[in-house]
Amino acid sequence: MAEDNAVLIGKKPVMNYVLACISLFHNGATQVSVKARGRAISRAIDVVEVTKRRFMPDLKIQNIGISTEELTAFEEGGAPSNVSTIEITLEK
Amino acid sequence: MAEDNAVLIGKKPVMNYVLACISLFHNGATQVSVKARGRAISRAIDVVEVTKRRFMPDLKIQNIGISTEELTAFEEGGAPSNVSTIEITLEK
Repeated sequence: MAEDNAVLIGKKPVMNYVLACISLFHNGATQVSVKARGRAISRAIDVVEVTKRRFMPDLKIQNIGISTEELTAFEEGGAPSNVSTIEITLEK
Repeated sequence: MAEDNAVLIGKKPVMNYVLACISLFHNGATQVSVKARGRAISRAIDVVEVTKRRFMPDLKIQNIGISTEELTAFEEGGAPSNVSTIEITLEK
């Protein structure tokens, strides 16, 4: 899957990301990957649920993967800290 | 799977829930279900990742399911609001 078809979830309102997903599908994508780290993970689930329930009921959740990324803490000069990540692959 | 083998994620530190999962497995469970709603969802992923990486590397993620629950807002007397949920099934 091309990285172009990924929606990275940040701190904007859920509906912004929902529209991003819908646009990708409307522009021909058959798979869209919703990715988030840390606290944005709950928002990623909201985005997927709203996209599916309100706008594209035939959408399938093809895969949900979770993982851990090691972050190097530049500011503290200390030990690296870990952050959880999620990647939800949606399929039309 | 018995409901006894579920760990419901709330606002306590991640390690509390990690220990709850490990205890269930040590007491004979072969499957443990980690459940969370709303903002606790990111913590649920942390719990699974820490349990798996630091303590039980052979653990398998058998399934990750997401859904939406409708909450009736008693206080406001208004429209019901929705909350996203996650359920991660771990298998020894």
